[in-house]
Amino acid sequence: MKHSPIAAEEPRYIKLNARDNVAIVVNDFGLPAGSRFPCGLTLKSFVPQGHKAALVDIDKDAPILRYGEIIGHAASPIGAGEWVDEARIRMPDAPALDNLEIATAVPAPLPPLEGYAFEGYRNPDGSVGTKNILGISTSVQCVAGTLEYAVKRIRSELLPKYPNVDDVVALTHTYGCGVAITAPDAVVPIRTLQNLALNPNFGGEVMVVGLGCEKLAPERLLPEGVDNAIVRMQDEAFEGFGAIVDGIMKMADARLAVLNRRRRETCPASDLVIGLQCGGSDAFSGVTANPAVGFAADLLVRAGATVMFSEVTEVRDAIQLLTRRAVNEDVGRALIREMAWYDAYLARGGSDRSANTTPGNKKGGLANIVEKSLGSIIKSGSSPIAGVLAPGEKARTKGMLFAATPASDFICGTLQLASGVTLQVFTTGRGTPYGLQAAPVIKVATRSELARRWKDLIDFDAGRIATGEMTIEEAGWELFRLILDVASGRTKVWSDRWGIHNDLALFNPAPVT
Amino acid sequence: MKHSPIAAEEPRYIKLNARDNVAIVVNDFGLPAGSRFPCGLTLKSFVPQGHKAALVDIDKDAPILRYGEIIGHAASPIGAGEWVDEARIRMPDAPALDNLEIATAVPAPLPPLEGYAFEGYRNPDGSVGTKNILGISTSVQCVAGTLEYAVKRIRSELLPKYPNVDDVVALTHTYGCGVAITAPDAVVPIRTLQNLALNPNFGGEVMVVGLGCEKLAPERLLPEGVDNAIVRMQDEAFEGFGAIVDGIMKMADARLAVLNRRRRETCPASDLVIGLQCGGSDAFSGVTANPAVGFAADLLVRAGATVMFSEVTEVRDAIQLLTRRAVNEDVGRALIREMAWYDAYLARGGSDRSANTTPGNKKGGLANIVEKSLGSIIKSGSSPIAGVLAPGEKARTKGMLFAATPASDFICGTLQLASGVTLQVFTTGRGTPYGLQAAPVIKVATRSELARRWKDLIDFDAGRIATGEMTIEEAGWELFRLILDVASGRTKVWSDRWGIHNDLALFNPAPVT
Repeated sequence: MKHSPIAAEEPRYIKLNARDNVAIVVNDFGLPAGSRFPCGLTLKSFVPQGHKAALVDIDKDAPILRYGEIIGHAASPIGAGEWVDEARIRMPDAPALDNLEIATAVPAPLPPLEGYAFEGYRNPDGSVGTKNILGISTSVQCVAGTLEYAVKRIRSELLPKYPNVDDVVALTHTYGCGVAITAPDAVVPIRTLQNLALNPNFGGEVMVVGLGCEKLAPERLLPEGVDNAIVRMQDEAFEGFGAIVDGIMKMADARLAVLNRRRRETCPASDLVIGLQCGGSDAFSGVTANPAVGFAADLLVRAGATVMFSEVTEVRDAIQLLTRRAVNEDVGRALIREMAWYDAYLARGGSDRSANTTPGNKKGGLANIVEKSLGSIIKSGSSPIAGVLAPGEKARTKGMLFAATPASDFICGTLQLASGVTLQVFTTGRGTPYGLQAAPVIKVATRSELARRWKDLIDFDAGRIATGEMTIEEAGWELFRLILDVASGRTKVWSDRWGIHNDLALFNPAPVT
Repeated sequence: MKHSPIAAEEPRYIKLNARDNVAIVVNDFGLPAGSRFPCGLTLKSFVPQGHKAALVDIDKDAPILRYGEIIGHAASPIGAGEWVDEARIRMPDAPALDNLEIATAVPAPLPPLEGYAFEGYRNPDGSVGTKNILGISTSVQCVAGTLEYAVKRIRSELLPKYPNVDDVVALTHTYGCGVAITAPDAVVPIRTLQNLALNPNFGGEVMVVGLGCEKLAPERLLPEGVDNAIVRMQDEAFEGFGAIVDGIMKMADARLAVLNRRRRETCPASDLVIGLQCGGSDAFSGVTANPAVGFAADLLVRAGATVMFSEVTEVRDAIQLLTRRAVNEDVGRALIREMAWYDAYLARGGSDRSANTTPGNKKGGLANIVEKSLGSIIKSGSSPIAGVLAPGEKARTKGMLFAATPASDFICGTLQLASGVTLQVFTTGRGTPYGLQAAPVIKVATRSELARRWKDLIDFDAGRIATGEMTIEEAGWELFRLILDVASGRTKVWSDRWGIHNDLALFNPAPVT
């Protein structure tokens, strides 16, 4: 349904599902006690923007429903028109993992969507990049300072010779030595580094800078069949720092020459690999930005693309909705496996999934992780869940995948890059300057106020859905077209215009030594 | 004893303790079978440089002694003159922690050393810096890209106005959100960030850049009594990116003006806070570089300075030597507490202290963590252990302290900065370009070959001890004087000359979410 634009002062709420007994206040800055909605409901207390008002009287211990799902139970009786804040909601337990329905509600495949294309860089292995970047891998943090020194020189001395290359990126990190490299969980950061180098935006031109004595042997970061692609600082051939920097530059020069021959060509939208993420969520995330992203995700899936959503602690409390959507038993089991792994990981550190919500989430109206999760998984749209990736694993299937990652923005971003995303869509309610150097990030605001205030950081205003300026469908289509534009290099996202990017942050669940 | 310089071809070994039944080969590139030492011993097989030769026949299961301590037991009979490589040594268990002697061999206090001074920056709180840097704290990784953008502009537009300020450093990291902030171990990264801001090289001029919705509230990074020192990107006053950057620059400008009034003044050596670390160790680490550092450490302690050594997994196997040296029962118990904490931390991740040694260590002749540890703790010299710091805790006592940290170079460096070191001494056998932006790092090579090859990365050649060019005492004095020179700004270390620095790497033993 399309809402008609309304005057700011008219009290307004959004109720998402017919079953819901709460709704969130839309008006900027909230509404005072006595505000009367068109339906006749009158607020008994101040309710801030994005926070929940009770639509009916709710008994103590009765379920509180949003998205048609239980987000908790009333800690005390709640009267119609009262502010249902965090303290009034008892959070339910996370769904047990041993009794979930699997593949019982697999959506019918969506109708194919044809005729949509973008201008991408096709690689020898068939993958397609949205950028043309030299990515230089590192096997250990020790070399980061030296590589960054070399990259500055590559930018100023070599890049001007290769106008078709967009950038050079040092894939630096804090792993590689001083870590328990044979611990069971070491597979995660190592796989991540191996797959990062293979991101389609790097065009298959892998090179590694290593030290020589580190635990993570630089050879482990080379794909099979690639030789002579390591600069080892401790090699006896290098007489000092200058020689090492020269060695890095010489190897980079050869790869830049190859990358410079790449040209954008028309590729079907099915060649896209798109990552979805949210950060700094508020109560509008699940109402405006994430539904618009979910609609665009459905369009991408219909066009044959690979799309992934992530953030284990933000799907954990809605896992029962996802296992039902799993395309088959294997995928459902894989979903449960990733949830169980994370439960154990958090428990080992004396924590649980409730550690996810932030002060900003709560200020934004999200009472707990259940409510946050319900709003988060809407990003995944309505197609079957076609596959599951362990953290940092490379995507090899089309359709909507769940890429298991922590919810931490920078870690999720790093892991999705390793999984092969060539563009990320990032929704935010509170606002974040988040960006990635290796792939463009489209930042979608949940509220128009944020989009206006951060006009030079936010790429897409999904707040227009709440104000009635557009429907979810319209926003989804506009976002889909923006994705094609950005993937084609026709539109530059704000973080790339400013050059503000988050460093890579590996997920290392194993100990450091 | 002072060795006379020798021809490269004369076979030579170093035996460290009268009890030792193995010795390490000194000659570059090792010695072939048949090589005959002055004492009459003839090698039965090739022995690489830095690796161990048996001095006598060693029975199966008999102890193998180096530094007068057991580094393992013979896995099979070993003949005199044979190469005692890693495979021939069974590693002993780590010393049990429940039965250690505490304070039973407290060294007599060393005689005071007077009259040594350096030119430092004295702070209002009495601490003294070796540099004059604006350190800008961050409460979450989200802001890193924005802050780095601002720092570039501060460097080019503001720093020229303030010639007495050395640099501006963005204290960026991957903590602050997406983490289990109430988990028991979250105290470690939070304390580290709090104390980093207080490093004496930053002159007490704290400022924090935060986002606004992150879990780590920026206020938590402010020392008591400091207000108006936070730039919060989500503040409604900031209309977009340009305004945010302006806000950071304005706050930085005010602090730079204060820092610019700082002047170096003559301070007693007792105002120094020196961190000791090793990385990329080889068998010479415990023979040349670390003993020289240990001698210099004794001079520093005698002069009244604060000195700290670190790296739990590299002292764990020699802990029985340290608890005896603890100045009292409390300090001994604190040592044991830190070892036990780390044992449990590693076990939880399916690992143990044997995960410490690297391929480079082994190639360099270190058979296992026991041998590595014995060579590592020599850095601590011969004074009583006067105190113990938990990871990231601020030093408040003089003398030789054990600052508990992982052995990871970059994490140890970050934690020692939080503990307040204003200069670090770093020994390396294999070579590393390691450097810190917030404090100068003197890099000490264990071998002259490395010091020659990396002439523009290594600051001090301790290999001269092995070649007989100088004694440990002479090297220790020379290093002590170099420390005073570098602390005074008279000598610039190589990593600062090139501007190559490792990023901060926090120790976060708690889960990410």
